[in-house]
Amino acid sequence: MSNRYAIILAAGQGTRMKSKLYKVLHPVCGKSMVQHVVDQVSSLGFEEKVTVVGFGAEVVQEQLGDQVSYVVQKEQLGTGHAVMQAAGILEDKEGTTVVLCGDTPLLTAETIDHLLAHHANEGAKATVLTAVAENPTGYGRVIRSNAGLVERIVEHKDATEEEKNVHEINTGTYCFDNKALFEALQKVGNNNAQGEYYLPDVIEILKKSGETISAYQTPSFDETLGVNDRVALSEAERIMKQRINEHWMRQGVTIIDPNNTYISTESTIGQDTVLYPGTMIQGASHIDSGCTVGPNTEINNSIIGQDTVIRQSVVYNSKVGKNVSIGPFAHIRPDSSISDDVRIGNFVEIKKSNMGKGSKASHLSYIGDADVGSDVNFSCGAVTVNYDGKNKFKTIIEDGAFIGCNANLIAPVTVGKDALVAAGSTITDDVPGKALSIARARQTNKADYMKK
Amino acid sequence: MSNRYAIILAAGQGTRMKSKLYKVLHPVCGKSMVQHVVDQVSSLGFEEKVTVVGFGAEVVQEQLGDQVSYVVQKEQLGTGHAVMQAAGILEDKEGTTVVLCGDTPLLTAETIDHLLAHHANEGAKATVLTAVAENPTGYGRVIRSNAGLVERIVEHKDATEEEKNVHEINTGTYCFDNKALFEALQKVGNNNAQGEYYLPDVIEILKKSGETISAYQTPSFDETLGVNDRVALSEAERIMKQRINEHWMRQGVTIIDPNNTYISTESTIGQDTVLYPGTMIQGASHIDSGCTVGPNTEINNSIIGQDTVIRQSVVYNSKVGKNVSIGPFAHIRPDSSISDDVRIGNFVEIKKSNMGKGSKASHLSYIGDADVGSDVNFSCGAVTVNYDGKNKFKTIIEDGAFIGCNANLIAPVTVGKDALVAAGSTITDDVPGKALSIARARQTNKADYMKK
Amino acid sequence: MSNRYAIILAAGQGTRMKSKLYKVLHPVCGKSMVQHVVDQVSSLGFEEKVTVVGFGAEVVQEQLGDQVSYVVQKEQLGTGHAVMQAAGILEDKEGTTVVLCGDTPLLTAETIDHLLAHHANEGAKATVLTAVAENPTGYGRVIRSNAGLVERIVEHKDATEEEKNVHEINTGTYCFDNKALFEALQKVGNNNAQGEYYLPDVIEILKKSGETISAYQTPSFDETLGVNDRVALSEAERIMKQRINEHWMRQGVTIIDPNNTYISTESTIGQDTVLYPGTMIQGASHIDSGCTVGPNTEINNSIIGQDTVIRQSVVYNSKVGKNVSIGPFAHIRPDSSISDDVRIGNFVEIKKSNMGKGSKASHLSYIGDADVGSDVNFSCGAVTVNYDGKNKFKTIIEDGAFIGCNANLIAPVTVGKDALVAAGSTITDDVPGKALSIARARQTNKADYMKK
Repeated sequence: MSNRYAIILAAGQGTRMKSKLYKVLHPVCGKSMVQHVVDQVSSLGFEEKVTVVGFGAEVVQEQLGDQVSYVVQKEQLGTGHAVMQAAGILEDKEGTTVVLCGDTPLLTAETIDHLLAHHANEGAKATVLTAVAENPTGYGRVIRSNAGLVERIVEHKDATEEEKNVHEINTGTYCFDNKALFEALQKVGNNNAQGEYYLPDVIEILKKSGETISAYQTPSFDETLGVNDRVALSEAERIMKQRINEHWMRQGVTIIDPNNTYISTESTIGQDTVLYPGTMIQGASHIDSGCTVGPNTEINNSIIGQDTVIRQSVVYNSKVGKNVSIGPFAHIRPDSSISDDVRIGNFVEIKKSNMGKGSKASHLSYIGDADVGSDVNFSCGAVTVNYDGKNKFKTIIEDGAFIGCNANLIAPVTVGKDALVAAGSTITDDVPGKALSIARARQTNKADYMKK
Repeated sequence: MSNRYAIILAAGQGTRMKSKLYKVLHPVCGKSMVQHVVDQVSSLGFEEKVTVVGFGAEVVQEQLGDQVSYVVQKEQLGTGHAVMQAAGILEDKEGTTVVLCGDTPLLTAETIDHLLAHHANEGAKATVLTAVAENPTGYGRVIRSNAGLVERIVEHKDATEEEKNVHEINTGTYCFDNKALFEALQKVGNNNAQGEYYLPDVIEILKKSGETISAYQTPSFDETLGVNDRVALSEAERIMKQRINEHWMRQGVTIIDPNNTYISTESTIGQDTVLYPGTMIQGASHIDSGCTVGPNTEINNSIIGQDTVIRQSVVYNSKVGKNVSIGPFAHIRPDSSISDDVRIGNFVEIKKSNMGKGSKASHLSYIGDADVGSDVNFSCGAVTVNYDGKNKFKTIIEDGAFIGCNANLIAPVTVGKDALVAAGSTITDDVPGKALSIARARQTNKADYMKK
Repeated sequence: MSNRYAIILAAGQGTRMKSKLYKVLHPVCGKSMVQHVVDQVSSLGFEEKVTVVGFGAEVVQEQLGDQVSYVVQKEQLGTGHAVMQAAGILEDKEGTTVVLCGDTPLLTAETIDHLLAHHANEGAKATVLTAVAENPTGYGRVIRSNAGLVERIVEHKDATEEEKNVHEINTGTYCFDNKALFEALQKVGNNNAQGEYYLPDVIEILKKSGETISAYQTPSFDETLGVNDRVALSEAERIMKQRINEHWMRQGVTIIDPNNTYISTESTIGQDTVLYPGTMIQGASHIDSGCTVGPNTEINNSIIGQDTVIRQSVVYNSKVGKNVSIGPFAHIRPDSSISDDVRIGNFVEIKKSNMGKGSKASHLSYIGDADVGSDVNFSCGAVTVNYDGKNKFKTIIEDGAFIGCNANLIAPVTVGKDALVAAGSTITDDVPGKALSIARARQTNKADYMKK
C-alpha cells in the first residue's frame, strides 16, 4: 500500500526477560517476536517499514536484514522518543503510519488492516487499537465519548474508580496521520516522574487541537499480548500454537493432542496426516498427506513424502520420500536424502547420505557420507567407517548389495552391485559386483571349556 | 432389552473433516467414533441395531461386521430420510427406538438408559435428549411448556431473541415410540431451502397430533458433542482421555500428568502403577499392578506383569512378565514373550523372540526369531543374524549361555547350555553345551605406528 | 521461632488412594506430600514439630527421620484424637501451635506465617485458615460475625441453605494457643455418628468459653488443596508444577511449554537455559545457564554445565561439563563424569565412566567402567567389554587414542596415549602408546559368488 508506513518499536531492553538475548529476538513457535511482527506488516505491502532498534542491538539488524529500514534510539527516553527517531525517514511523507511494538508477536495483518480501515472511515488523525481485557488491572484505559470517539487514555495508576471499571484497554498499537504524528511529537514533553517522552501524549495533543481521535476495538484480546517476561513468552507460545494447530486441523490434519504438538509457522502439513503427541515440526518443513508422525518426534527443516511413517525419531534438514518407514528411535541427520519405500529401523543413524528406493537399514546401523543404491540391505550393526580421526571419506554401495551384520565398510570403499559382504567382516578394499567378500576368522569350539 | 431398537446414523460424508476416511471411522482414543456408539448401545442389549450407512461406505460395514444390521442411504436427503431407510427392518415392530448419530463418540450407555427411562415414565411418543450449552449459538433450542414438556424445537436461525436466550439445546439424539416414528416419517416433507427431510419435523408432526413430546436433559453437555471437523475430533479425544484417566486414577493408578497420558478404552491398569508423562497405552493392553511406565513410552496390545518398569520405550503385541526392566530406548516388536526378571537395556530390539527368566540383553543388541533360555547374557552389540536377504532363520540359545560383545550368531544356529561365545566372534555353526566358541583374529600391536 | 509448635497430622489411611503406599508418602513433583509440609514448616524454625503417624506407619518415620518428633495414633478416632496424641510432648508449653494436615502439599510457609501473624494480631485463642472456594460443596463453611470473627464452623451436611451460600471454607489448618488447645481437647466428646473426636469441636468449646476465634483467609484456594485420591494428587502435581515453572521463567529460563515440563522442587536452573517439551528435571539437579534441554529428556540428580545441549536423552546421577552435546537418544547412567566439550551422540550409553575433555563417542557405543582421557575418539559401535558374566573390569583409554568402529576392548585393558585400535578388532591385551593394534582377518573377495 502506498502512503502507508510502519514504525516497529524494537529498542526495549526487556530487563524482565533476564536474558542475554535482546527481548524482541526471543522466539515464539520458532520465530523471533519481531520477525512475527515484520512478517505480518510485510504481508500488507507498506511503502516503508522502519524498525527502531536500541543502541548496540546490531544483532536485531543482522537477523532482520533488509526486510526493514532501521533507526537507532541511542538512549531509552520513552516511546515518543523512539518514534521520533524515525522522523528523518518519514516526517515529510503524506499518508498513514502504524506504530507497533516488536514484542506483540500475535498481532495479525488482518487486525492491522481493520485498524487502518477504521482509521480511514472515521477520518481520524489518530486511532488506538484497543481490546477488552477480562482483568484490566495495570493497563491504560480508553475513555470514550458518547459518540464513541476517544476522550482520553488514562494510565491505571491515574484512573478514577469509575475509570478503573472500564475494561477497554490501550494495546499500545496506533495508527496516525503521518504528518500529524511528527508535528505532535515535537510538542511532547518529558515533564513526568520517569523523565520520558510518551507516545500516548500525542493523542492528548491532537485531541486538544480539535482532531478526531478514534479507537478500533479488536475482538481478540489474545492478539494484543505484549511479552515482557518469560511467563508471557510461554503464554504467547501457547496461543500461537493453538492458532497454528487449529489451522491445520481445519485443513484436514488429525492432531491427537493439540496441546502437546508443536508446529512452526513456516511448516505445512497435508491432509489426513496424523500427528501423535510430543511431536515438533520445526523450521520450514513440509509433511505431505497421509503421513503418521510421532509420538515424540522432531522434524526440522525437512520434506516428508506421502504416506510416510516416522515414530519416536529425529529428522533434520533432509528429504524423505513416499511410503518410507522411520523409527522408532532413528536419527536422520542433515543433508540426507531418503528415497521412496525405504525402511530405517530402530537405533539407526543416517548422516549426509542417500538411500536408494526400497533400501533397508533396520537396526543399529550408522550410514554416514554414503551413497546407497536401491534395494540395498544394511544388516544389523553394519556401519560405514567414514572417519579416520582426521578426514571423512565416502562409501558407495551399489544397487542390490547386501551388507552383513556388524560389518565395517572402511571408506573410501565401493561395494558393487548385488555383492554380499559377510557378517562380521571389516572391508578395506572395494568389492566387485556379485562378489562375496569375507574377512573373518574361522570358528573354533573348545569343548567343555566352561566346565573348568 | 426386548422391544428396544437403535438406529445409528452413519451416512454423513463429513466434508468438513477433509478426509479420505469416512467421518464416523475417525478414531477417538484409538477406536472409531461409530464403534464407540455401537459399544455403548450394545451394552444395553437392544433387540435390533440398525446402522444407516452412505452409498459406497462398505468400509464402515467391514469394520463393524455383524455387530449391527445395515441399511444404505443412497442419497443424502436429510436425517429424516436416513431414518426412513430403516423402515424395512423396523417399521412393523412394537417398542421404543433410539436414534443416535455415529459421530457422538462420548455418549454413554448410562445416558441412553436415562433417556429411555424418562421416555417411559413420561408416556411420551418422542423424547429429545437435551443438554445445557454455555454458548448455545448454532444449536437448535428446545422450547418447553410450563409443564416442562417440549413445545417445539427451533433452529438457531429461526429463533426469536427470547428463544435465543434459551440454553437448553437439542443434541440430535432421540427416543421414539417406534410405530409412531415411522408413521410420522411418512408425513415429513422436503419443502425447505435444502430440499431435505428433517428428523426433527417428526417431533412437530407428533406434537400436532396431540402426542406427548418430552425432553430428557443430561447434566453432561460434553457427552453430546457431535464431531464435524478435526477441531471437534481433538476436543472429543481430550474429553474421552480425561474420562478414562480419571477412571484409572480412582482405581488407584498414579498418573503424573493426566493431560499428557493417553490410554485406550480397551486397556486396563493395576493399582499402584505409575504412568509418567508422554505415555500411550494403546489397543487392548493390560498393565498389572506396581508397574512404572514412561515417560515417553508406547505400549500397544501388550500384557505387562506386576512390578515391571518400562521407560522411554516401545512395546507392541507382546507379553512381558513380572519384575522386568525395559529401556530406556528399547523396542519390543510383535510376538515377543519376555519372562520374569528379564532386563532389556538401552538400544535393544527384541522381535518375535522368547526371553527366558532372568536373561539379560543390556545394550545395543538385536534378538530376532530367537528362542533364548533363562539366565542367558547377551552382551553389548551381540546380534542374531536371522536374515540372509531371502529367508528368516531361527536362533536357539540354551539356559545359562553367555554371548560375548559384538558377536554375530548366524541363524539357523544353536548355542548350547552354559556355552560361551567369545566377544567379536561370528558364529556359523552350533556351539555345544559348556563349550567356548571363538572366531576371531589374534591381536597384533605395531609399536610406534602412529608416530609416522 | 521459639514458642511456636507444629502438629502434622499424618495418620490417615487414605483408603481412597487405593494404595499400598501410605497416603502422605505419595509424591508430588517427586517429593512426598508430608515432606512438602515438613519443609515449609521447617523453614519457619519452629521449636517443636510433632508428626502424628498411624499404627504401623514406620515407613513414614523412616522417610522423615529426625526432621520431626513422632507420636503414634494407634486407632483412627478422629482429628481431635490425633492432635491429643501430641499432649505428652506439647501440653505444658506456653506458645502457639499450628495444626496442619500431611496431605496438603501446596501450603506455603508464607501462608503459615500470615496465619500466625493474624492469630497474634487478633489476640485469638484459635484461628482457622480459610479460603474462598468457587464451588464450596462438601466443605465446612466458616460463619463470621459482623465483626469478622468466627461464629461457628458448620459442616456442609449440617448447613442451612443460607449457610450453604457461604463460599468461605475451613481448610483444616488451624492455629491455637497451645495450652488452650490441649485444655479444650479434654472436653471434646465422640457423641456423633462416626464415634470420633473432631478437632473443629475445639473451636466450639473455646467459643463457648468466650474466647476470640479468628479466621485468616488466604487468597490462594489452590494452596489449601487436601489430597484424598489420585485425582486430587494429579491436581496437586499440576498446581505445584505451575508454581515451580513460573518461578524459573521469572528467573530467566525459557520453558517452551510449562504444561509439559516437569521440574522437581529441589532442582535449580540457570538463566537463558531453554527447556523443550517433555522434559523432566528430577531429584536434586542443577542445569547451568545457556543450556538446551529436551525435548523428551530426563535429567535426574545430575549437574549440567553451561551451554550444554541434551536432546531426547536420559542422564542419571552424573556430572556433565560445559559445552557438551548429548543425544539424541543417549543414556548417561549413574556415576559418570563427562568433561567439557565432550560429544555423546545417538545410541551411546555411558556407565560409571569418566570422559575427558573433548572426547567423542558419536554413535552406537557402550562405555562402561572406563576411564577415558581427553581427545579420545570412540568410533561407531566400539564398546568396552567390562563384564565376563561374573565380575566387572576397568578399561583405561589414554589421551588422544582412537578406537575404531565395532572394536571390542576386553577389560581389564589399557589403550595407551595416541594409540590406534583398528576397526573390527577385539583387543585383549594392552595397547602401548602410539601403537597400532589390529586383530582382524584379511578380506577375500570371491568373484561372481552371488551369480550362483
